[in-house]
Amino acid sequence: MIDPPYFAVIFSSHRRAEPGDGYGEMAERMEALAAQQPGFLGIESARGGDGFGITVSYWATRDDVTAWGRHAEHLLAQRFGREKWYRSFSLRVCRVEAARNFATESGT
Amino acid sequence: MIDPPYFAVIFSSHRRAEPGDGYGEMAERMEALAAQQPGFLGIESARGGDGFGITVSYWATRDDVTAWGRHAEHLLAQRFGREKWYRSFSLRVCRVEAARNFATESGT
Repeated sequence: MIDPPYFAVIFSSHRRAEPGDGYGEMAERMEALAAQQPGFLGIESARGGDGFGITVSYWATRDDVTAWGRHAEHLLAQRFGREKWYRSFSLRVCRVEAARNFATESGT
Repeated sequence: MIDPPYFAVIFSSHRRAEPGDGYGEMAERMEALAAQQPGFLGIESARGGDGFGITVSYWATRDDVTAWGRHAEHLLAQRFGREKWYRSFSLRVCRVEAARNFATESGT
């Protein structure tokens, strides 16, 4: 990861619990597709057993964030998200101003 | 939540899996304590079965973020975190520049 400043998109969501609704495949596909976009720096994701999850993607510039938001296949996934997969979500675009990391020797 | 701009602290971490190590109690206590601090706007947290988790806390100003980072009891929790609870973590301080929400009628 580069040094700040860079950009983060925080996507927090409540999933509908419906196995076989294609969500897992879409999520994997979107991660792979995001990684191919200009300015992509990384992505982190966690979802608990209660269906609440947070995904944060990191981008070099605000324009990169905007471009990814408007990518045609991503727009389609967003539509399915509203129609099928999410009970609710919040999306926040942020400028990362400071970052630090910690790792134990066995932690990498 | 107020309208942007406001601040977010993204804390992503790999937990050590050690039941009975006091982590759950500390996490609850830190959430309750954070909620009492000046400028606190909210907190969201998710952790998957693989031990990777993301917690995002939201604050009115950058000074509020700094003050919470220096709170005595929080500093103690941070020390235990490095010594016992986390294999690795990243901490990012961000300025939230845009936000939008979606909820189905049943989603609140």
